[in-house]
Amino acid sequence: MSEAPDPSKIVQLGVGFWGPKVLLSAVELGLFTELGKGPLDAETLRTRLRLHPRGARDFFDALVALGMLERRDGRYANTPETGHFLDASKPDYIGGLIDMLNHRLYGFWGTLTEGLRTGEPQNEVKTGQGDIFDVLYSDPGRLKLFLQAMTGLTMGTAKAMALKFPWKEHERFFDVGCAQGCVPVQVALANPHITGGGFDLPVVKPIFDEYVKRFELQSRLKLSTGNFFEDPMPDADVLSMGRILHDWDLEKKMALLARAYAALPKGGALIVYESLIDDDRRSNVAGLLMSLNMLIETRGGFDYTGADCTGWMKRVGFRSTSVEHLHGPDSMAIGIK
Amino acid sequence: MSEAPDPSKIVQLGVGFWGPKVLLSAVELGLFTELGKGPLDAETLRTRLRLHPRGARDFFDALVALGMLERRDGRYANTPETGHFLDASKPDYIGGLIDMLNHRLYGFWGTLTEGLRTGEPQNEVKTGQGDIFDVLYSDPGRLKLFLQAMTGLTMGTAKAMALKFPWKEHERFFDVGCAQGCVPVQVALANPHITGGGFDLPVVKPIFDEYVKRFELQSRLKLSTGNFFEDPMPDADVLSMGRILHDWDLEKKMALLARAYAALPKGGALIVYESLIDDDRRSNVAGLLMSLNMLIETRGGFDYTGADCTGWMKRVGFRSTSVEHLHGPDSMAIGIK
Repeated sequence: MSEAPDPSKIVQLGVGFWGPKVLLSAVELGLFTELGKGPLDAETLRTRLRLHPRGARDFFDALVALGMLERRDGRYANTPETGHFLDASKPDYIGGLIDMLNHRLYGFWGTLTEGLRTGEPQNEVKTGQGDIFDVLYSDPGRLKLFLQAMTGLTMGTAKAMALKFPWKEHERFFDVGCAQGCVPVQVALANPHITGGGFDLPVVKPIFDEYVKRFELQSRLKLSTGNFFEDPMPDADVLSMGRILHDWDLEKKMALLARAYAALPKGGALIVYESLIDDDRRSNVAGLLMSLNMLIETRGGFDYTGADCTGWMKRVGFRSTSVEHLHGPDSMAIGIK
Repeated sequence: MSEAPDPSKIVQLGVGFWGPKVLLSAVELGLFTELGKGPLDAETLRTRLRLHPRGARDFFDALVALGMLERRDGRYANTPETGHFLDASKPDYIGGLIDMLNHRLYGFWGTLTEGLRTGEPQNEVKTGQGDIFDVLYSDPGRLKLFLQAMTGLTMGTAKAMALKFPWKEHERFFDVGCAQGCVPVQVALANPHITGGGFDLPVVKPIFDEYVKRFELQSRLKLSTGNFFEDPMPDADVLSMGRILHDWDLEKKMALLARAYAALPKGGALIVYESLIDDDRRSNVAGLLMSLNMLIETRGGFDYTGADCTGWMKRVGFRSTSVEHLHGPDSMAIGIK
């Protein structure tokens, strides 16, 4: 018998949903919020969370082994990261994202096979409860938690963008589909000459204003409200769009790019930032999986490579384009008019 | 503002079920079996699997990025590992395990939070369809696929055990709850003086016999049939139990250890091999998550540390004990009578 290959990697990937589900349940149970008040021993933490004794210690220790908790002298505590982002009493809480993964996407991804066979979304659309945007925008409390989570998700990327783009050559900047305003805030903090703000639906305004005020940037950054398919985009030297294009089919992607082109002056720039798939489509796992998430969540959305994006930019008129890595799986494609 | 911590690890873990679900769907669709016949371009593979054009290429390229497929000159091919273990026409197919993860455990883990609150299994038990063993043993075809998958899962561990235990000092060896007989076969191959076999339910016999015959070991290895809670364990110098003790509550664990002790001669050895949790319960993620899987799947089962196991061994009479790492997350605890 020749040496058989080892199935370990296959098995590890196959059971790989167990660890993520442990995190999702921990956020659902408010574990990190409870530990935000101070470290607790296993029995006290179990009682506070009203857990049955059977699985509690394995659950807590699995979170330690997954790097989501610390344990010292038998007391569990948040890590710096989980304390900052998963304690619901903290301003940078991203539990809205985890909640969405737990209560919506874990189940919807369960019918991925059906989605691959039919090409149809596997979310509320299937049961006639509206599309993802109806779901997200129907409840202002949930919307705020979601937009806050988007800030957490985008922070590293926003900071990289604030440094890597030649902001010195420009003055007025708006982020289209800006959510809380994470990107305009980081760009404004790092580039004191920049003014502008964001463009999003009116329902986002109080959430944007509150966030911008935290950084005392309300005199430089405003929310321009409107629908980016119907209303003119703000007057700016630089526009950006992050995690927007991937929600839509190619026709709507092209329409958005054309609308941005129309709004910019000659020499103006459009920055598209998201988990751009590597041009060879073989290394950016996050971008490829995000594209499958667009299959689950939208009627026509998909992610794309940097080369795809700069090709589309040229088709709508941008004269020069480039692509630069930002942070984690995120890159930016830049088009100059 | 001080530098904020980065939520990347949290987000990566939270969306970490996407990649595993892509693999589970690929096995469900027979993708690796189709590619077992030869490499295919995206469009041919899509047509063969009857997939909608929308997500197909992202799906295939995600499998490339996850290391489960290769792609050369636009044609997709199995990796050596996926070709060996995930092509249903191959003898070492572990699709039975992946199928179980896809059709049973992905959904059952969806109610992990409920399991943590109630301490109750989240599988067929909840709907009165029997326990996991009823499910597994009710269909001989499915049982064979499952036992075959257990072989794949245990192969690396079995090979390590065949080398790391002092087999020279012993002659007659039986693996209790042996499934196809992966461990006895590897031990017998590496140690030509060893005879014995396995102990399992009568329904396992044709599956065991067929597997052992593949290695021409039928004269040295036999299946002794019985129920390990009711019937005497086989007469042997060495007994082993792998992924058996974790299925049961402490009382039944102790009963099994006592029955093994009773069956062994003075100087005989019991080897318990599975994903023993590290004694400090903070590094063996696989063992801790497997224990939560026992919460999902059984009424009282749980995984345990090497120190737990050797402590129990001493309580039933074993005079000396030790623990040694085998392969991946698996270790063995040894008790000498």
